[in-house]
Amino acid sequence: MVPQARYLTGNKEDIKEFIDKFDAPTEDARRIGVLWSGEHLFEGTVETLELLKGKGKQIVFVTNNSTKSRSDYKKKLTDMGIPATVDEVFGSSYSAAIYISRILKLPADKKTVYVLGESGIETELDSENIPHIGGTDPSLNRIISNEDYASIASGSSLNPSVGVVLCGLDYHLNYLKLCLAYHYLQRGATFLATNIDTTLPSAGKLFAGAGACHAPLVAMMGGTKPTSLGKPSQAMMDAIEGKFRFERGRACMIGDRLDTDVRFGIEGKLGGTLCVLTGVTRSAEDWKDGETVPSVYVDKLGDLREGA
Amino acid sequence: MVPQARYLTGNKEDIKEFIDKFDAPTEDARRIGVLWSGEHLFEGTVETLELLKGKGKQIVFVTNNSTKSRSDYKKKLTDMGIPATVDEVFGSSYSAAIYISRILKLPADKKTVYVLGESGIETELDSENIPHIGGTDPSLNRIISNEDYASIASGSSLNPSVGVVLCGLDYHLNYLKLCLAYHYLQRGATFLATNIDTTLPSAGKLFAGAGACHAPLVAMMGGTKPTSLGKPSQAMMDAIEGKFRFERGRACMIGDRLDTDVRFGIEGKLGGTLCVLTGVTRSAEDWKDGETVPSVYVDKLGDLREGA
Repeated sequence: MVPQARYLTGNKEDIKEFIDKFDAPTEDARRIGVLWSGEHLFEGTVETLELLKGKGKQIVFVTNNSTKSRSDYKKKLTDMGIPATVDEVFGSSYSAAIYISRILKLPADKKTVYVLGESGIETELDSENIPHIGGTDPSLNRIISNEDYASIASGSSLNPSVGVVLCGLDYHLNYLKLCLAYHYLQRGATFLATNIDTTLPSAGKLFAGAGACHAPLVAMMGGTKPTSLGKPSQAMMDAIEGKFRFERGRACMIGDRLDTDVRFGIEGKLGGTLCVLTGVTRSAEDWKDGETVPSVYVDKLGDLREGA
Repeated sequence: MVPQARYLTGNKEDIKEFIDKFDAPTEDARRIGVLWSGEHLFEGTVETLELLKGKGKQIVFVTNNSTKSRSDYKKKLTDMGIPATVDEVFGSSYSAAIYISRILKLPADKKTVYVLGESGIETELDSENIPHIGGTDPSLNRIISNEDYASIASGSSLNPSVGVVLCGLDYHLNYLKLCLAYHYLQRGATFLATNIDTTLPSAGKLFAGAGACHAPLVAMMGGTKPTSLGKPSQAMMDAIEGKFRFERGRACMIGDRLDTDVRFGIEGKLGGTLCVLTGVTRSAEDWKDGETVPSVYVDKLGDLREGA
């Protein structure tokens, strides 16, 4: 039997019942979708978050965007008029840093991370005291040279302490950085990704996401994929649970994407999943194949105010 | 029954018979493998090519390297001491140019090619009078800006006459170029690649090949792959045949790789395939699975001198 999603907009009692059921809604904080689109905050977003907090709910803003650190994201939320603390933000870069420092057992001589990505990753690795190279190192923003070929092939320009290659979205992606990452993987480094989204919305269209940035490595490795530390990977859910220690049955995932957000909540066995129709998912038609069906849905997050 | 490969080295009569059988051996001219390794020309290479030419054989140097034009490659061959003419070289960039100009029927208003690759591609497109953008354009060697997002999304910075995205090996690969290519594909451009090799040997190790450079686009397009104009794609064989008008049953493919060179000859129904053991393939063990078995093999190309 295909599961059914309950439509809450306009049903005050159902909304109240829904809100009462949960302690810790986890909010999808991506740029377009749940809270805002571009620079436009959806109507009622702030009031809804205040309503939920007023009822004692813990809010966690969960984002796959690896380019920003938690404090970058906290600033973005505050700038948009949404009160938030750094501890309420859980990004895929932080998720990866937690995974590397607390779950992955790296040998003492292989603790360095080679980063293919932006400063958000570096900041979060620093917060867990994880040594790293690559990333925003300006000396790598150049064309590969004949000397590079020789020194990479011989290993003389490779750092022998690299035990992890961590890939996120990299606006500074280039051939040299990809070849360095590949050679670390060839020498046995663990292949991690902050997330595997191949595209990312911007200006109303799609642009290259983290999954596109590490696709050359997957191709060179004969199809071997990285372990993802972002939604819908349950490694991220485990990391969130490890930090917030909430009861899964009393937590709800709120998001606009079926394949990442809703799936993340269902596979994590949360008590509920709420889909908003302000982002990628536009109507109940989108889950009619029965593959990933949210437990409830509303037109916009602000509709939860009806349950005040 | 698993096909058997005949070992020719040391068998003078067999070599003579082999040579007499063919009119047009096609040589694999990759950097490491058949003719040379690095700056080292294998013993007997030049004499063998002279022997074959002396017996009236047409030689075609077939390479998947898209970064060099035919005249670049002719120079490389000459510099290595191998007499060659531009017309004897058939590279994947030239193959792609021929395919676009003579086989692909582009509408009159969609004749421009967006290039993700190096000057070898541009030179060959020029040789067929095909308009092109992207490629080595220095204005694209930069980080994507907020203005780029807006102008790419709206289409205002896109060239409406682009009907093809052609990808080769691109040492200058970056995020902006990938996003431009993706948006042309989204708007209906035909997705072509000079070749799909994910890696490329250099300094004795592997580095990113053309297949790695276009992997982000394949990921963003949900797995849609480009049509390849390099070995082992038969589109390249058709293009070679179109130019040289040889009899396939009297042509032999010479190469060092089973998955590209030997497969190219077998699938093209050439009269024979000769594998040399100076490159990727190191012994008859490599084809014992029976999947891609050359008709004959020698330790090195120079062994064909025994049939003089």
